[in-house]
Amino acid sequence: MSTDRHATHRSKLLSLIRRNAASPLLITNPRNVTYLTGFTGEDTYLLIGPQQLQLFSDSRFETQLRDECPDIPAEIRTARTLMPDFLANLLPKFNLKSVGIESTSMVASVRDLLAEKLKPIEILSQPGLVEELRMIKDADEILELRAAIHQAERGFELMRSLLITDQTERQASHDLEHGMRRFGALRAAFEPIIAVGDRAALPHYRAGLRTFQEAGFALVDWGAVSGKGYHSDLTRILVTSKLPPKLHQIYGVVLKAQLAGIAAIRPGARCQDVDAAARKVIEEAGYAKYFGHGLGHGIGLDIHEGPRFSPISGDELKAGMTVTVEPGIYLPGIGGVRIEDDILVTRDGHEVLSSLPKEAPFAAG
Amino acid sequence: MSTDRHATHRSKLLSLIRRNAASPLLITNPRNVTYLTGFTGEDTYLLIGPQQLQLFSDSRFETQLRDECPDIPAEIRTARTLMPDFLANLLPKFNLKSVGIESTSMVASVRDLLAEKLKPIEILSQPGLVEELRMIKDADEILELRAAIHQAERGFELMRSLLITDQTERQASHDLEHGMRRFGALRAAFEPIIAVGDRAALPHYRAGLRTFQEAGFALVDWGAVSGKGYHSDLTRILVTSKLPPKLHQIYGVVLKAQLAGIAAIRPGARCQDVDAAARKVIEEAGYAKYFGHGLGHGIGLDIHEGPRFSPISGDELKAGMTVTVEPGIYLPGIGGVRIEDDILVTRDGHEVLSSLPKEAPFAAG
Repeated sequence: MSTDRHATHRSKLLSLIRRNAASPLLITNPRNVTYLTGFTGEDTYLLIGPQQLQLFSDSRFETQLRDECPDIPAEIRTARTLMPDFLANLLPKFNLKSVGIESTSMVASVRDLLAEKLKPIEILSQPGLVEELRMIKDADEILELRAAIHQAERGFELMRSLLITDQTERQASHDLEHGMRRFGALRAAFEPIIAVGDRAALPHYRAGLRTFQEAGFALVDWGAVSGKGYHSDLTRILVTSKLPPKLHQIYGVVLKAQLAGIAAIRPGARCQDVDAAARKVIEEAGYAKYFGHGLGHGIGLDIHEGPRFSPISGDELKAGMTVTVEPGIYLPGIGGVRIEDDILVTRDGHEVLSSLPKEAPFAAG
Repeated sequence: MSTDRHATHRSKLLSLIRRNAASPLLITNPRNVTYLTGFTGEDTYLLIGPQQLQLFSDSRFETQLRDECPDIPAEIRTARTLMPDFLANLLPKFNLKSVGIESTSMVASVRDLLAEKLKPIEILSQPGLVEELRMIKDADEILELRAAIHQAERGFELMRSLLITDQTERQASHDLEHGMRRFGALRAAFEPIIAVGDRAALPHYRAGLRTFQEAGFALVDWGAVSGKGYHSDLTRILVTSKLPPKLHQIYGVVLKAQLAGIAAIRPGARCQDVDAAARKVIEEAGYAKYFGHGLGHGIGLDIHEGPRFSPISGDELKAGMTVTVEPGIYLPGIGGVRIEDDILVTRDGHEVLSSLPKEAPFAAG
């Protein structure tokens, strides 16, 4: 992404700081540092305010900083100085009465250290400002998400074409990840979930040592990370022999619920109403207690970000948000069905960005 | 790992709590939960004390908890209740005056919420107790680390045998990761660093779009995660045509420094002295300012854990610790050399667990 884009993100953040009458911010969440500067390394803080723009890093990243964000000044510490002491030495130069910290990602012990060492500069919790900006994607970010979805879908098709029934979940997971990388992904968005048979009842199972032939079907939940770090997230049911009748029946319920959730997506919709639209279908079919998680979440530089779809979400949809819709029904000892797509909130409704068929479970091989 | 093993870890922790006159602990770091229970999922807390043993999780993990740690009671929340409220409802049953939290991994905002919602139960920062236990590996854990090192070394040899000079760093990185998985790794311990030419001067570079033929050499820093989640971490220099004379010279300095660091490893040695033993070699060769990071770190369930080798480390070595030794010299615009092995502290000295040759840079293909 161009340096201009990151400068735009910074000026939007400064507007948000002004609007909230907030203090200059010490950005410590690495995704937020990337969003504001283009720097993709770690352990690097950014001080940003109306009169402040300064990176604090260490010698491991000196050259990378010059490459990725040459226009932002960077102070470099050595292995002999810890970050809190480094900041205590340097922040007084910036003429600050107070500094905002990202308390939803900074660990408690670091905040304690900073509060002590930075005195008399006051430490204020000002979380969520960059995350608020990140929820609305610009055109470049939407292109990146389309790429991440394309990489995931091509990888899935390749894994499916390679599949043999005596393969383990884990081997298929490795093929899926390698497949996504072949089509340009940096890596898998998370360790692909490939859950054969009753393991599909575990919404967060990891691929293990079961073979596909031990049951006739698997739940596959996977995604890719695009070249610039954006995440896709998809789920399909893959059938190698036959889906048990009970699961065939709940497949229809989950699909109907997913379509109802997607249909409710438009600017201005409340996220708890989108959740309710899908959850109602599952409740009316008598499976309320077998759908224990929220309906979906935002995707972007993180695999899970705002907004959230859940019965208690206070979020509201806006054009430019990118979200997953992923209802599921999980029957312990039998298996589970989840169907997940990635959706862009448009000015007048929504666009489903992912394109793998879902009218029926996927036939393998 | 057997349930017995986790019970042993728990009883060691209880002794440590007693010895420190500490409060019962709310374990929130997922690696620490794994170490104490065998549960490998996320977002799950463990309350542990002389009279307390209770997991707090959500419905996504209900079946997995029954599979992985059936003997530990688990309270399950639904999507309608957030974790802090859930704890506020349940913790009063446990008759606690205070509870210790892991402030080096719990984010500040969660501690704030808990401090408010759990009143009158007092929240105390008691970080590092489980991490202290985890530094000393038992026989099973050492076997797992040996497996992770073997997987990394076999994956490296496979990647090297597949290497063609018009491959990009990123393609070679994908081959390396897929190779490690072929030999049983769950995944790469981190995104492999493959840095061609002057990129090798960036200690934390990620594999990018350079081809090997753009320079005659690359720095490769990689590791594997074993089936039970243990991490290896290695670095070698790979030469496809010729190493520039300047780097050939510093290779000798770095190797001498690494051997000096390894030779200093024994129970009772101070970690800053081990760091100094290697750093002195680099300083005397005139490259002090080109070695900006610590000499190494512990490896285990995390890729970076205690103890730390650095000029300011207060750690001391004990038998059963597993550490990396990885000095480097980085010359901006030219390239860099780092050599890294994994070492076990034994009762009377040390054992180098990794076995790839290092007398000279690796010849590729």
